[in-house]
Amino acid sequence: MNYEHWVHEELETLSKSLGFRYTPLDELENRLARLRKAMAKEGLEGLLVVQKMACYYLSGTAQDGLLFVPLEGKPLLMVRREVERARVESALTEVVATQSIRNLPSLIQTYYGRFPKTIGLELDVLPAKDYFRYQDLFPVVKFRDGSLVIRDTRKIKSPFEIDLMKVAGEIGKKVYQRGREILKEGMTEIQFGGLLEAAAKTYGHEGLLRVRSLNYEAYTWHVLSGPSGGIVSQSDSPMGGLGLSPAFPVGASRKVMRAHEPILVDFGTCYHGYQADQTRMFSIGGMGKKFTDAYNACRDIHDTVLEETRPGTNCEEIFQKTIDLAQKLGYQDNYLGPPGLQTRFIGHGIGLELNEFPFLAQGHSYPLEKGMTLAVEPKIVFPGEGSVGFENTVVVTEDGYEILTPLGQDIFQV
Amino acid sequence: MNYEHWVHEELETLSKSLGFRYTPLDELENRLARLRKAMAKEGLEGLLVVQKMACYYLSGTAQDGLLFVPLEGKPLLMVRREVERARVESALTEVVATQSIRNLPSLIQTYYGRFPKTIGLELDVLPAKDYFRYQDLFPVVKFRDGSLVIRDTRKIKSPFEIDLMKVAGEIGKKVYQRGREILKEGMTEIQFGGLLEAAAKTYGHEGLLRVRSLNYEAYTWHVLSGPSGGIVSQSDSPMGGLGLSPAFPVGASRKVMRAHEPILVDFGTCYHGYQADQTRMFSIGGMGKKFTDAYNACRDIHDTVLEETRPGTNCEEIFQKTIDLAQKLGYQDNYLGPPGLQTRFIGHGIGLELNEFPFLAQGHSYPLEKGMTLAVEPKIVFPGEGSVGFENTVVVTEDGYEILTPLGQDIFQV
Repeated sequence: MNYEHWVHEELETLSKSLGFRYTPLDELENRLARLRKAMAKEGLEGLLVVQKMACYYLSGTAQDGLLFVPLEGKPLLMVRREVERARVESALTEVVATQSIRNLPSLIQTYYGRFPKTIGLELDVLPAKDYFRYQDLFPVVKFRDGSLVIRDTRKIKSPFEIDLMKVAGEIGKKVYQRGREILKEGMTEIQFGGLLEAAAKTYGHEGLLRVRSLNYEAYTWHVLSGPSGGIVSQSDSPMGGLGLSPAFPVGASRKVMRAHEPILVDFGTCYHGYQADQTRMFSIGGMGKKFTDAYNACRDIHDTVLEETRPGTNCEEIFQKTIDLAQKLGYQDNYLGPPGLQTRFIGHGIGLELNEFPFLAQGHSYPLEKGMTLAVEPKIVFPGEGSVGFENTVVVTEDGYEILTPLGQDIFQV
Repeated sequence: MNYEHWVHEELETLSKSLGFRYTPLDELENRLARLRKAMAKEGLEGLLVVQKMACYYLSGTAQDGLLFVPLEGKPLLMVRREVERARVESALTEVVATQSIRNLPSLIQTYYGRFPKTIGLELDVLPAKDYFRYQDLFPVVKFRDGSLVIRDTRKIKSPFEIDLMKVAGEIGKKVYQRGREILKEGMTEIQFGGLLEAAAKTYGHEGLLRVRSLNYEAYTWHVLSGPSGGIVSQSDSPMGGLGLSPAFPVGASRKVMRAHEPILVDFGTCYHGYQADQTRMFSIGGMGKKFTDAYNACRDIHDTVLEETRPGTNCEEIFQKTIDLAQKLGYQDNYLGPPGLQTRFIGHGIGLELNEFPFLAQGHSYPLEKGMTLAVEPKIVFPGEGSVGFENTVVVTEDGYEILTPLGQDIFQV
């Protein structure tokens, strides 16, 4: 059978029957319109989008390709590996095949009529070697950093995107409910984490959590029990856990979980690329007063953040308010990490990546806007003993917020 | 309790009791000696190692840090997030804390006595923006690409590394054996993949497979049944599968698996960062002659590669030999992909990353060397119908090879 023929005759039908939702053209056009406003402001005549999730955001496909977005006119998607599948997945009309990056200049010149004077590239993720290559290929073009233009556009989510995040949140709810059935004394952290992950995949979770970073890797099996919860590691989070080896020193370990230990489960879920992040505590037979008190403090801090969550509130001020509250509640030395290793954020933007704008953090003095999505995650760490945390993902609405992670708020006790 | 105190008193004991193996100093010194030979040849007076797996390889820790390797003298590990844990994990003696990248110049100047004239950076992965930052911080230093120096050093594995890969291979064996017990008609691909992954984690698998690329993501749930196996996608592999959504269009899908379909399972396992890669076919009630014949052809091609696997054989010639054999066996149109989308490699180096040197591929005309490790993976694709494949990971020995993935060679039929 001819492969191309099969793709066009059957792939779309098969994909849709298995739940694929394609990004509609008007959704892409709205995104492009906002992107172009930002491009104009930055003086960019074109944007060459190289990163997979940015290509997906602007074209609807994550096939291996590059997207050229001129300030005016249709974007051009240039696909390296599988152009027919990209044509099925993307609502864009200008989709061409290209075998080699060497063809880029002629493709763009032919399509656009000339070379743009300035082109933005995602310099915060594009490897330096690739950057030099683009400079060689386009000697007359001035390249500039276009990553903020893309990240700023993506920080405001559309109803289409919020819908996908709500599905991710529903998946998360099922995962935690299933967790209550799975958890048994004597299981290891990683065994529990692995079973949660397997359950999540049957509910529609996509497995990989994306994060915008060279070295930081996201993962779902962040199950930390007792002393594991008091361990700091490579990640910029209050506690990293022990992990599985010096090569993967974060998250669940082979430690056996015992009754009455605090068991922190920070499990992100992903649907059509869109993530929802949530943290709840589990316990076998209840955990001690020290930990339940701290858990309640986390909930208080979380609720205080949500009370301030509406368009116009300053992100850094929200962060500072939680510092003050943690101090008032007596947790100043344990809030967001052990003394000396405390992190400086209480929430992060979330969407296609785990570290999108905005950040409820020190040094982030800008207002919340309608359509921003946030994971709010107060955590309290007791070195040598354990940690507790509480986390929901919310969207900023016209006059407040809506929670996208609808799971129960209490400790999941078995 | 004081966190630092706890780390030094208890973390190492806890970690070792849970199976952590630290890289011994003599192992690090052997690696550094070989690295320095390559540095000298490239005219690099120093190397600033930025990527996590390269830091782990040369220091034994994957904590968030940067490693400065001068051509002579001890390397300096500068840790951003958790220096005490890095001190527990790394056998290096010069380990310091640094809060900010701004401190790098003074740290290096003080430690080394002056600035090196030339410093190598991993320009194939370091984002361009970070590169400009280093240029600003070190105006007197000439930066050059040091990635090949590191990748060339890593391509030859030590007995210590081979031991870890053997454990990864043993984990893989258990995963496939367990797969035979798990697989049932009516399960979806992703359900099967998720359960294999959960099982793998209980056997010691670390969950993430690393790959050296901006956009290519590795994952374990590459379970492709029937027509899914005939779908090409973003990855540079003979078939990518349908995947779960346009945002994750590779690997297992929600397609239900049926009796007599070919079910391809390409499941990489990882232990202490070191990967073993393996592919086997599963089937429910046996698959048709067309697929068993093609599976046997894959095994023939695999065996032919191994017959040539010894120090001195040219990698490109091995690849070409498999092309000739596939043609002789009648699979020229289906070998390594559907017509027009056939990939151009039959094997890849493997270790801390899935795409290490060497490549048994077109354009890779260099000899195999003792200590190289290879995943050999012939695959045959029938568009619209399915695909078959066979894969083992091997190490090149003094006069041949040793298989690191000891699982049974036959179809896993249930």
